[in-house]
Amino acid sequence: MVSPINPKDWLLLKHIVRFGDIDAAGVIHFHHLLRWSHEAWEESLQIYGLKAIDVFPSSVDIHHYIDIALPIVHCEADFMAPICIADELEIQLAPLKVDAGCFQVKYAFKRDERLVAHSLIKHRAINGESRYPCDLPEDIHRWLEASSIGQGVSSL
Amino acid sequence: MVSPINPKDWLLLKHIVRFGDIDAAGVIHFHHLLRWSHEAWEESLQIYGLKAIDVFPSSVDIHHYIDIALPIVHCEADFMAPICIADELEIQLAPLKVDAGCFQVKYAFKRDERLVAHSLIKHRAINGESRYPCDLPEDIHRWLEASSIGQGVSSL
Amino acid sequence: MVSPINPKDWLLLKHIVRFGDIDAAGVIHFHHLLRWSHEAWEESLQIYGLKAIDVFPSSVDIHHYIDIALPIVHCEADFMAPICIADELEIQLAPLKVDAGCFQVKYAFKRDERLVAHSLIKHRAINGESRYPCDLPEDIHRWLEASSIGQGVSSL
Amino acid sequence: MVSPINPKDWLLLKHIVRFGDIDAAGVIHFHHLLRWSHEAWEESLQIYGLKAIDVFPSSVDIHHYIDIALPIVHCEADFMAPICIADELEIQLAPLKVDAGCFQVKYAFKRDERLVAHSLIKHRAINGESRYPCDLPEDIHRWLEASSIGQGVSSL
Repeated sequence: MVSPINPKDWLLLKHIVRFGDIDAAGVIHFHHLLRWSHEAWEESLQIYGLKAIDVFPSSVDIHHYIDIALPIVHCEADFMAPICIADELEIQLAPLKVDAGCFQVKYAFKRDERLVAHSLIKHRAINGESRYPCDLPEDIHRWLEASSIGQGVSSL
Repeated sequence: MVSPINPKDWLLLKHIVRFGDIDAAGVIHFHHLLRWSHEAWEESLQIYGLKAIDVFPSSVDIHHYIDIALPIVHCEADFMAPICIADELEIQLAPLKVDAGCFQVKYAFKRDERLVAHSLIKHRAINGESRYPCDLPEDIHRWLEASSIGQGVSSL
Repeated sequence: MVSPINPKDWLLLKHIVRFGDIDAAGVIHFHHLLRWSHEAWEESLQIYGLKAIDVFPSSVDIHHYIDIALPIVHCEADFMAPICIADELEIQLAPLKVDAGCFQVKYAFKRDERLVAHSLIKHRAINGESRYPCDLPEDIHRWLEASSIGQGVSSL
Repeated sequence: MVSPINPKDWLLLKHIVRFGDIDAAGVIHFHHLLRWSHEAWEESLQIYGLKAIDVFPSSVDIHHYIDIALPIVHCEADFMAPICIADELEIQLAPLKVDAGCFQVKYAFKRDERLVAHSLIKHRAINGESRYPCDLPEDIHRWLEASSIGQGVSSL
């Protein structure tokens, strides 16, 4: 779980590193950074005002069928400095619409103003049934627009 | 992933501990044992001859709808000795039908003949749509019967 | 990551369920509940005023050697109701000193006042080098005492 | 856990996708691919003949201190086709020495001869205590040399 720093800013979040994320070398086991990135994206959508049930598939509520899926087609991460237990990380999100059916989010992880890692996750919209590419859902489109205009509250 | 020791024995499996399972104390981060247990159960069903697509829900193949889900209602684990990187663990499964709609599997983890941990996972069958309790699926019932008769090949 | 509901109450925390915690059956993949429990424990210690670096081993800062480790000897969980994406769960911790070298924490997970799952994790203190049992560290002892007196702020 | 296809070939491995790796969209939750990649690397070193205890830090055996750590400085993954439960994936490793203190491994994931995903993980050698860059350990150097000459048994 990632939590907001300012409840009105959907692009600046916080994550505290926990024991289970650290490996026997005493630093983050690398792929957890991508888990935190995805959780930060979910947190961002929620703060902006979107409901998870409108964005993510859920086989429990069959009356709430999502017809557009947003599978990840690419992800990457770079590590600049050791990330250790109890580190309080600030996560700055930079979303970008790539084309009508594709968007990416860059995540910068800072500790005490210093960049310790960054990541990027790219999603492509597909029809959930046919699995053919399609346009981004309206909700995601609005979040991308709002994010690019104001870059969240953080840039004000 | 868990792999078979004897390709005909669905109740005796093997797991090698990897770096990402170990925390900064140098031993297994506890909840991974329950992940290994579930993977061992899946491996067991596969060796016995069941197909995952007939047992587990999958929202990708909508023509292959599973009407009975097997959610976990209880799990537990005990740790007797440190489990470290590269440990080759033998996993012995002991499945048991609890009642018409419920079964459990005990997992004993041994290293060099010594018990280092054990776990237990209990599943209850429910109708995937109504979420009401129901009888176990026929496939699981057969696997339970075969496992209790011979306790796999391992008891021969 | 788990976050506080009231920054002065170290026994009542919050967790929002994210997409990666949910499996193809549309509900929590069971063992994540134990990860959340451990993270809630870490969050509790932090709110109470303890530093992770004084409790958890870290091979990065070799000048900060922890001589007492607190390995988990038992864990368990029960699931009463489906836990789904975006669920806001309240986590109530009930720590208990079992004996001079052992303590446990019960975790109750509620959604809208309803208990949906609970878990229990039991730790035993050992000397980090000899791995022989020893008394609980002073910090943990204080946290246990304070928690049992007031049950955190939540019981006031 | 990843297992060998041919016990003499340290660059061609196998992974079977399990239920816990699949999210509510019915396909792999993306970051697990990077976990499998790291596990495949560990399996490769083991088949080649290296001991984990000589490569990875372990705070349990303090007499076996590793003075060179191999932190990951970059990772990435691309997803070409849905990866589903029970998929049997072939993993082909392509290790490359980048410079005296740095190496990378490319991982190609195939199902029925078709590339479904690939990943890349880059490691840099550092002195475990000073955390300054240093040369790769001799063991890793040998594994890189052997892998580049024969590309494992798989290229024969």
